[in-house]
Amino acid sequence: MDILLLTELKDEQRKMIQLLPDITIYDRNTITHEKYASIQVILGWNTIANQILAGPNCVGFIQTVSAGVDALPLKQLAFEKVLVANTSGIHAESLTESTIGMILAFTRGLFPMGPKPFREWKPDAKRKQMGNISDQTVLIFGTGHIGSHLASRLKQFDAKVLGISRHGETKEEFDRVGCMNQVSAFVKQADIIVNVLPLTRETYHYFDNEFFSLTEQQPLFVNVGRGESVDQVELIRALKSGRISGAALDVVDPEPLPNDDPLWKLPNVLITPHIAGSVPHFRDSLFNIFYPNLKQYVLHGSIVKNQVDLTRGY
Amino acid sequence: MDILLLTELKDEQRKMIQLLPDITIYDRNTITHEKYASIQVILGWNTIANQILAGPNCVGFIQTVSAGVDALPLKQLAFEKVLVANTSGIHAESLTESTIGMILAFTRGLFPMGPKPFREWKPDAKRKQMGNISDQTVLIFGTGHIGSHLASRLKQFDAKVLGISRHGETKEEFDRVGCMNQVSAFVKQADIIVNVLPLTRETYHYFDNEFFSLTEQQPLFVNVGRGESVDQVELIRALKSGRISGAALDVVDPEPLPNDDPLWKLPNVLITPHIAGSVPHFRDSLFNIFYPNLKQYVLHGSIVKNQVDLTRGY
Repeated sequence: MDILLLTELKDEQRKMIQLLPDITIYDRNTITHEKYASIQVILGWNTIANQILAGPNCVGFIQTVSAGVDALPLKQLAFEKVLVANTSGIHAESLTESTIGMILAFTRGLFPMGPKPFREWKPDAKRKQMGNISDQTVLIFGTGHIGSHLASRLKQFDAKVLGISRHGETKEEFDRVGCMNQVSAFVKQADIIVNVLPLTRETYHYFDNEFFSLTEQQPLFVNVGRGESVDQVELIRALKSGRISGAALDVVDPEPLPNDDPLWKLPNVLITPHIAGSVPHFRDSLFNIFYPNLKQYVLHGSIVKNQVDLTRGY
Repeated sequence: MDILLLTELKDEQRKMIQLLPDITIYDRNTITHEKYASIQVILGWNTIANQILAGPNCVGFIQTVSAGVDALPLKQLAFEKVLVANTSGIHAESLTESTIGMILAFTRGLFPMGPKPFREWKPDAKRKQMGNISDQTVLIFGTGHIGSHLASRLKQFDAKVLGISRHGETKEEFDRVGCMNQVSAFVKQADIIVNVLPLTRETYHYFDNEFFSLTEQQPLFVNVGRGESVDQVELIRALKSGRISGAALDVVDPEPLPNDDPLWKLPNVLITPHIAGSVPHFRDSLFNIFYPNLKQYVLHGSIVKNQVDLTRGY
């Protein structure tokens, strides 16, 4: 079985894979066009993978290296019954720490910060913008693994934590969870809004003019989900009009954000370059998902962990 | 009894005080030099209070509006047996949230941040500096109310938390507490060092060249205690030489920090203008300490809450 590693693994991890029966490993350096048609397993996703899927192929299992699978041709994969696994779960702590750091950057008077030109000793101006998380109501869009982990950390700070999910199922990490048609009442209460939703047809440009017009507390808007879930023109309008007091964005549309994008110039926007989900010891965490999946796929044609529902898209 | 309010209280709080027997309230607007000698209670601290203490006076109780009392003439107050109470306790959550925000600003690639000139989309450079708190060892100087609260919040993030106190008493919020002569071994392990020590004769310029030469992990240095506990020339040297990887400073020496101070220009220094302890609903929290103290002082000549040990200085 030919497998293609588009993400680097450790030497000992490659050796473990080699011990599986009849495996030939290809990577970015060794793959050739002639071999595209025989690849059955792909780890990672890039233009090579796209090209393989575009031609005659026998790919049966794709292991992504991210929680979101929106870059993949999901319809085609569903039609061809390709198994897809993501890395959902391993990013939760990183995304949670980045989100809380972003919130505290605003609520504790840290932002904007850095050397010149932000040198200023203006305690009174800073104090006016400050608050404690314990006094805030945080509304999280997405109550899956990441949203729930973030909620539990925010509860440790004594925040009030609300959630929105497709069906509004109760979750112990949240004070209350609403479904999509209850959004209006939830948004009105929010001091901080966080998006961790996956990108799907339903969430594309979900945060639009209609959404931002619901805010009443001039909330901070944090996006660590996907940039395309936000109508960025309307986000900028909401920032300028004061419908929201600030934005912390790890994801934007497009990425990388062009140097002349107006978002860079707004004084109340904190941007990080899609790094919030970065995981220490990533290759170990990835291998803990990929290896059991690969072994099962080689032996039985199925996978055991993190299978994506291709019709839902997550 | 004449009392001087150098910090504004709410109208209803002033009314409650008026209901105590024989009270006359003075404030910044109504106090005159002629009245200095008759003031028995002072709320807050500023040059007027200094002047009152410098002359013939009958001050018997001072309620400060900060946890630190280093601005007061402690020797004189001890000699004259003046009762002093601080607001220790009410700043713990604010200082904790600011400290964690400062740590996350560095560990989650948020710093430096802001609009131009920090617009850059350089994920790889950022990722190199990133980590999760769960992988960090944090060393807190000071294991009192503030240090312990911070430790408990950091433990919720699964950090390893070490403490240093004068006598090294075990505290449940810490994995381990050492005393001052064990500092060397503790500093070597630290990824993050936080100072919350009060300023006393013993802690003045405690963080000096000798201290910074002990570091081995290029730790981040966070100071939310007092600026004078740090030899700032040596701090700058340690930042430039890489003995420490960065500094987050809510307190500096002097304050306000002069516009031409070299600290402003360093790329790896985050400065906030002594705001980390700012408390929401401050006047309510303050009154919950001041009022019971005042009532007891009026009726019995003693106080009931937050009395400062004038020989220790905290």
